Amino acid sequence: MMKEFEFTVYRGTFIQLARLPESDSTSSPAKPELQRTKGVLWVSAESGRIKGFDWKAQDDEAFYAFMSRHGWVDVDGKTNGNLGGATKVKIVEAREDKNQFFFPGFIDTHIHAPQYPNAGLFGSSTLLDWLETYTFPVESGFGAQPTMNGKSQDQNPTDAPASALHIYDQVVSRTLSHGTTCASYFATIHVPATNALAAICHKRGQRAFIGRVCMDNPEFCPEYYKDLSAEDSLSATKDTIQYIHTLDPKGTLVKPIVTPRFAPTCSRPSLTSLGQLAASYNPPLHIQTHIAENKNEVALVKELFPEADSYAAVYDQHNLLTPRTILAHAVHLSKEERSLVKARDAKISHCPASNSALGSGIAPVRDYIDEGITVGLGTDVSGGYSPSILEAARQACLASRLLGHTKDFIEYYSHAGYGKQHIEGREKLSVAESLYLATRGGAAVVNMENDIGGFEIGMVWDAQLIELGSVRMSGSSPLSSTVNMNGTPSTSLIQSGPVGNVDLFGTESWEEMVQKWVWSGDDRNVKAVWVGGRMVHWRG
Amino acid sequence: MMKEFEFTVYRGTFIQLARLPESDSTSSPAKPELQRTKGVLWVSAESGRIKGFDWKAQDDEAFYAFMSRHGWVDVDGKTNGNLGGATKVKIVEAREDKNQFFFPGFIDTHIHAPQYPNAGLFGSSTLLDWLETYTFPVESGFGAQPTMNGKSQDQNPTDAPASALHIYDQVVSRTLSHGTTCASYFATIHVPATNALAAICHKRGQRAFIGRVCMDNPEFCPEYYKDLSAEDSLSATKDTIQYIHTLDPKGTLVKPIVTPRFAPTCSRPSLTSLGQLAASYNPPLHIQTHIAENKNEVALVKELFPEADSYAAVYDQHNLLTPRTILAHAVHLSKEERSLVKARDAKISHCPASNSALGSGIAPVRDYIDEGITVGLGTDVSGGYSPSILEAARQACLASRLLGHTKDFIEYYSHAGYGKQHIEGREKLSVAESLYLATRGGAAVVNMENDIGGFEIGMVWDAQLIELGSVRMSGSSPLSSTVNMNGTPSTSLIQSGPVGNVDLFGTESWEEMVQKWVWSGDDRNVKAVWVGGRMVHWRG
Repeated sequence: MMKEFEFTVYRGTFIQLARLPESDSTSSPAKPELQRTKGVLWVSAESGRIKGFDWKAQDDEAFYAFMSRHGWVDVDGKTNGNLGGATKVKIVEAREDKNQFFFPGFIDTHIHAPQYPNAGLFGSSTLLDWLETYTFPVESGFGAQPTMNGKSQDQNPTDAPASALHIYDQVVSRTLSHGTTCASYFATIHVPATNALAAICHKRGQRAFIGRVCMDNPEFCPEYYKDLSAEDSLSATKDTIQYIHTLDPKGTLVKPIVTPRFAPTCSRPSLTSLGQLAASYNPPLHIQTHIAENKNEVALVKELFPEADSYAAVYDQHNLLTPRTILAHAVHLSKEERSLVKARDAKISHCPASNSALGSGIAPVRDYIDEGITVGLGTDVSGGYSPSILEAARQACLASRLLGHTKDFIEYYSHAGYGKQHIEGREKLSVAESLYLATRGGAAVVNMENDIGGFEIGMVWDAQLIELGSVRMSGSSPLSSTVNMNGTPSTSLIQSGPVGNVDLFGTESWEEMVQKWVWSGDDRNVKAVWVGGRMVHWRG
Repeated sequence: MMKEFEFTVYRGTFIQLARLPESDSTSSPAKPELQRTKGVLWVSAESGRIKGFDWKAQDDEAFYAFMSRHGWVDVDGKTNGNLGGATKVKIVEAREDKNQFFFPGFIDTHIHAPQYPNAGLFGSSTLLDWLETYTFPVESGFGAQPTMNGKSQDQNPTDAPASALHIYDQVVSRTLSHGTTCASYFATIHVPATNALAAICHKRGQRAFIGRVCMDNPEFCPEYYKDLSAEDSLSATKDTIQYIHTLDPKGTLVKPIVTPRFAPTCSRPSLTSLGQLAASYNPPLHIQTHIAENKNEVALVKELFPEADSYAAVYDQHNLLTPRTILAHAVHLSKEERSLVKARDAKISHCPASNSALGSGIAPVRDYIDEGITVGLGTDVSGGYSPSILEAARQACLASRLLGHTKDFIEYYSHAGYGKQHIEGREKLSVAESLYLATRGGAAVVNMENDIGGFEIGMVWDAQLIELGSVRMSGSSPLSSTVNMNGTPSTSLIQSGPVGNVDLFGTESWEEMVQKWVWSGDDRNVKAVWVGGRMVHWRG
């Protein structure tokens, strides 16, 4: 099909996190900073990639001159239809008067799609009892328990239970509505439902890594929800990989990811074969799992794998600690494990909302970054209660501000030799640092730092249009105005100004507007979302 | 004016926190539980107080029989206009099909109204530098710096700056929209603007305690924003009290509260005279201040008040530690201070969002409660970034789950003799406990536990109508449905089902629905708010 237009021209304010310079090993890496540019940026309709920008074309006059210079004409005939340009372009504007701006799409590096019905339900549980009480029961409803040991399973997504399809559809709707353009999903052990999640992401246009969950250790997995053997884990994983490679042969949008749930649920043969499977592809497949979320879990792994020096070493022994591995949580890593993760260039998904909600602890992510480890953010639905990466960014800031009060953190740096590495207060994440983790950090975690997470020529247009709303202070006094039926005076800002909960008073710098978005914003501020140049969500 | 109708009859589901039994001193107090009733409850249009309920009148038939039995007729002529009852009543229904329910209004026991424009702006600051950088500058804009030492100030609210009026109007709009029916406000040092806040609350119908801030210590207060003397602090406070007592002679809605900012900003003569002022009324006036928010602040108070054994003792020496005193924060109280606060029956406002955001620490509130101290929730705008008590409830839960990781908490209970008092994990606040703090706890903090915070006969109707939205799972498969322009399939729950971010799948118990409201809800779920029986906010 011919495209109606050759480029989409995005016009207005663009805010992103500046790319960090490569750090040398002698000093701490630079802290991320927000970067704002105004003008136009254009994206190929064919490839969905950014082809150019012009930060001088800021006002209408400069914009028309820009269009004319390129010989472009507005396909909708609004902007400069009479200039007679030869090349049709679509124009999308971020309106200044509504404090709209383009921002890179969020990347959720760790989310359990089937657990979404449990979002907000966790009681006072911690990891291991939470899995038993909340998680395994809901996940087990996504298909039949496998009964045919070793035989190839049904692959047809339409054979997944209707409830599973609706839940997955809702997860994709919700994450898109919060501006998540790329997600690394854990599904369940069931091949049809996992394939359905891939098909739904592909259809809806969300960039996704889709992992069929492997869990075959009968010592830890419940009787009603497990792979029957290491062979089953492997063959079902292969089935899903095959389905996804058929669905999206070039992996433009959806890719498979090898997913041993976590060490306690997996037999050694399963871990070994999954490591081999990932390595057998060129480039190797991505891998995702959990690590050191909770102290009881760390103790359990030590007991189950006495041959390994550490939790990280378990994965390393099975070739699962690779540059394409996402390790979720990493709250309680030892100094040696931090070195090992860094040496293998494995990535960390920081899930602060989940870690606070389940009382797991606080991951010292600023230190990980300073040590050279790549970190992104994850919602960890439904250990995390929210599918919003903006909420994860907020919780990352909050948790980091409590980190200095924790015993483990204080003791780590009181250890002889470690103390000098820590600068007082450096562990506190700023809004810019959290947003970096949510965009460029996440992009690096999924090894796509040259494709997504920022606005650079050659990157794909995975973006969101944020609207903070206008500043409108009425001239009449609230003391003299009349009060409506609903108690709201007609002068009130709440009725005339803001979108959602962000209130602007006209005194804010642009950086402060971004801070207000992070601290008070929600999905109401996400007016449109694009993945690979395709609009995949829009709020009227 | 005659009321058009005698009662408002609220019909449907009512959820509240059960009143706790008085605890004896030998065992830990009971933990709060959610309580649900269905039927009708009626409120006097004259007094705004709850006059009765009938938990049997659940279905239409029983409801009509109930109406007929009382001889009541629907003033809107909808429900039973032809029954010929003599007494007109207004009927308000919480609809089952939309998962609506009535819930007690929230009580914000600590909020700085003038700081609202700074909500979300705090950088990486902690208390003392945050005051200098963000807080004093914004507050100083609410009026002219006093120049006439000792003379009575202008009291006219219309003389407050227009920007101050608009900000206060917006704060009231926002807090009402989040379901806050009662708030204890810090204003600024300026009498006209403080009086304007009182007038706006009175006009808009929000229950409020209004405090003119006292700060006369030139050693700590900035030159451009302070009372000129202890006499000025006192006389300006008296001016505001007089204004409020004229505005609302019975204190039905708005009351004054004596407000020494916190010990470091107040001279000894000022503290003494404010304590005397509060005690000179019958009943004594309410008092609010800050205590032990931050460790540097605690050290500063120790340095400034060497004559006092502790921070709490400073207030106690000046008769400011009373049963009608609200102590905001109380993060770092010593064992002795906890005993003193308990002995004086002073109340604590727990402000978890603020304490995390400014890195102040985590208040061990479950322990305070177990020791017999009364605790409520505060947003502490703008140390807290959100004017929502629901957000404060969430942050109370999250912070409490991290408390067991903090050094201070661990060491407190490793002290000989204290350890036996602590039950492992008891410090984690459940959703029910947080909601208790947000309603009945807050009511007790402002000494109104027999008037607000629950649905009991004789209490005033300070309430909110919560809507979670319907469960609607479409029959057609997301795999076969068409995708709209905006990427959302027509089958998607996001377009047809929920209000805001709460997603119901039809599998939730009613307690789980409440949990989902707390973890995913926002102002979109607040459909209506009443104070004293008057509707003061409504969302269409």
